[in-house]
Amino acid sequence: METINPFTIIGLAAGTLTTIAFLPQVIKTWQSKSAKDISLGMFSIFCTGVFLWIIYGFSVGDLPVLLANIVTFILAFTILIFKFRYG
Amino acid sequence: METINPFTIIGLAAGTLTTIAFLPQVIKTWQSKSAKDISLGMFSIFCTGVFLWIIYGFSVGDLPVLLANIVTFILAFTILIFKFRYG
Repeated sequence: METINPFTIIGLAAGTLTTIAFLPQVIKTWQSKSAKDISLGMFSIFCTGVFLWIIYGFSVGDLPVLLANIVTFILAFTILIFKFRYG
Repeated sequence: METINPFTIIGLAAGTLTTIAFLPQVIKTWQSKSAKDISLGMFSIFCTGVFLWIIYGFSVGDLPVLLANIVTFILAFTILIFKFRYG
């Protein structure tokens, strides 16, 4: 695992943003109970890719990539479940 | 820039998936001209985060992170524009 340096902070900021980005979508879909305009293909492929990012981040010991993708996976997978529930 | 190794291949596969994931959403929204269920908050925050990932990937010389996020930015930004156009 790398030492914390300025680049790691940029990476963590990037990871925080691309992760929390999914929260407004989770909340919106939860409240509207409508997922018609959301692409099933997008969230299926995305969740698979994020899972591979987790393996990659762990393999190369990249903390921002690892942490960000674990949380992103949880949120994107929630949207995928909503898509199945609310169409 | 790191040498190509098995981890880099996993990273490139991850990046390919989380990047092409946005393509079905771009196509769906383009065809339906409807973006009601898509969260403006999600795609605004996401594009900002992806931009920081580009800076991070460039800074640490991480090829998968850099390449994936450049293409992801183009696609996610397109969805953001669609959100403004089709509400």
